[in-house]
Amino acid sequence: MQLLFLGTGAGIPSKQRNTSSLALKLLEERGTVWLFDCGEATQHQILHTTLKPRKIEKIFITHLHGDHIFGLPGLLGSRSFQGGDELLEIYGPAGIQEFTETFLRISQTHLTYSIIFHEVQEGLIFEDETMEVEARLLDHVIPSFGYRITQKPLPPKLLIDEAVKKGVPKGPLLAKLKNGETVELEDGTVVKSEEVTSPAEAGFVVAILGDTRFCQAAVELSRGADVLVHEATFDTETQKLAKAYGHSSIYDAALTAHQAGAGTLIANHISARFLPEDAKTLANEALHVHPTIHIAHDFAEYEWHKNKKEIQKKKKERQ
Amino acid sequence: MQLLFLGTGAGIPSKQRNTSSLALKLLEERGTVWLFDCGEATQHQILHTTLKPRKIEKIFITHLHGDHIFGLPGLLGSRSFQGGDELLEIYGPAGIQEFTETFLRISQTHLTYSIIFHEVQEGLIFEDETMEVEARLLDHVIPSFGYRITQKPLPPKLLIDEAVKKGVPKGPLLAKLKNGETVELEDGTVVKSEEVTSPAEAGFVVAILGDTRFCQAAVELSRGADVLVHEATFDTETQKLAKAYGHSSIYDAALTAHQAGAGTLIANHISARFLPEDAKTLANEALHVHPTIHIAHDFAEYEWHKNKKEIQKKKKERQ
Ligand SMILES: [Zn+2]
Ligand SMILES: [Zn+2]
Repeated sequence: MQLLFLGTGAGIPSKQRNTSSLALKLLEERGTVWLFDCGEATQHQILHTTLKPRKIEKIFITHLHGDHIFGLPGLLGSRSFQGGDELLEIYGPAGIQEFTETFLRISQTHLTYSIIFHEVQEGLIFEDETMEVEARLLDHVIPSFGYRITQKPLPPKLLIDEAVKKGVPKGPLLAKLKNGETVELEDGTVVKSEEVTSPAEAGFVVAILGDTRFCQAAVELSRGADVLVHEATFDTETQKLAKAYGHSSIYDAALTAHQAGAGTLIANHISARFLPEDAKTLANEALHVHPTIHIAHDFAEYEWHKNKKEIQKKKKERQ
Repeated sequence: MQLLFLGTGAGIPSKQRNTSSLALKLLEERGTVWLFDCGEATQHQILHTTLKPRKIEKIFITHLHGDHIFGLPGLLGSRSFQGGDELLEIYGPAGIQEFTETFLRISQTHLTYSIIFHEVQEGLIFEDETMEVEARLLDHVIPSFGYRITQKPLPPKLLIDEAVKKGVPKGPLLAKLKNGETVELEDGTVVKSEEVTSPAEAGFVVAILGDTRFCQAAVELSRGADVLVHEATFDTETQKLAKAYGHSSIYDAALTAHQAGAGTLIANHISARFLPEDAKTLANEALHVHPTIHIAHDFAEYEWHKNKKEIQKKKKERQ
């Protein structure tokens, strides 16, 4: 899993930061990419990455403000233009379907694939064998959701060398052992599953939040997450404005991470008033509250290392 | 007057060319800018120019394909965000108002200014003391308009030194002479307007066309224009595709300019299959049909020199 930030600005694009979009790359896990928000020119940002629009399986919209959705028309069109024919599922607040259908109809955009819309309510919004996604309503000026993405524990792996050592023959007994069962060999030896398998591995938990004030829902949604992606439109000096405008400061974001017992905090939705060189200062303002803070920039990519249960910034690979 | 090309690509954005948008800068003429089409990320392109969104007085949409309108939501929002409070007028095919109002409503974008929509029909769509705009339906796969922008002749200028030489006193007689009247001085001398004024100067005529096949309407709309901005999605080799897809080749564009007796042809809406280094070859393919051809690139700017009645490319000033 990697998190590739496509747009990390707030409100309107600047030369440094585009409006919101974040790709959760699940290429190893499921061969696809999930997109969170789609500000204008997200498809333009994608041109500078290795992402393929047709690999986008799901798009989650946190809220309907323009800086989070105005790139959707163009991206859907390009996904089609470039030969995408796989189903796309779009999750978002009520209104996302009307928005999408209106611009497709008026621009006479005929897609080569189908879209299923899910108008999001709080609770479990997606689950399959490997992943689940939970949504919670945050505290913004319009309905704004946070999403908690949980990778289910990875099944135990069969340690084939160990099994051979114990005398387990190739065939159905191996499958039973892999599935957690205890088996008896022909010579009467009993072999337990845990003797010949590695333990199940925990998956990752990532919480990706829409625009929000500091709120208890954000803390609960982020509980114990390995990674928390949280907006930080303001700094501690402008803390009061954050509340007034329905946003968070970097302090609020750190407090949420701290109270949730989350791992790495990655702050995005950074106001254009902060220059790239301010990122370090911004992070420093909140390190006393939460020890691991990154300020995301456009094209920043973070990679999940499952053995260390930790996410790390990759070297910049802008193309 | 200057023509600043913000997006010169076709269909989808590439790293070299954004989707369609063209600014007609009328800063000297009326202190404003008129925008023709607004593909996605037009506001991002504007960030690299000296254009101010609040200076945009009118937006003309040629047709409703996504590569010509998907930047409208963001641009309208940013014009507001940056303190624009002057009325904006939007001209375009039926549907442009519903498109705009739907995304404003769903994204809860509250603009600081009013918009007047004009759903375009063929004929004169705008006229005031200095300018007029005529629209004509072209031949594309959906209704697509061309716009002919005519600057009215500039009024004669009073040659004050000549008037003084003839003994005309300061005051109302000068105003009469400026207005074309003949006056009699106190000493009985008769002074004619043309003796103390420069002749009225012709204004410019620019035709800016939407996507189209070669068609007679395009020729008529461009009749005698000083500048013709015409799409050239294809080259002569792919000429047949142009017709099939409702587009033009560079040859079609040149033929239109030739048959219309137009001045400079500036080709835009260039397919991503042509690389920047192909521009010269592309122009060369049609120079035998029309002698003055430019292939526009993003941020190319052309300046009107009224004394020479000619438009010339400015040095690139990308910021
Ligand atoms: Zn936002
Ligand atoms: Zn087009």
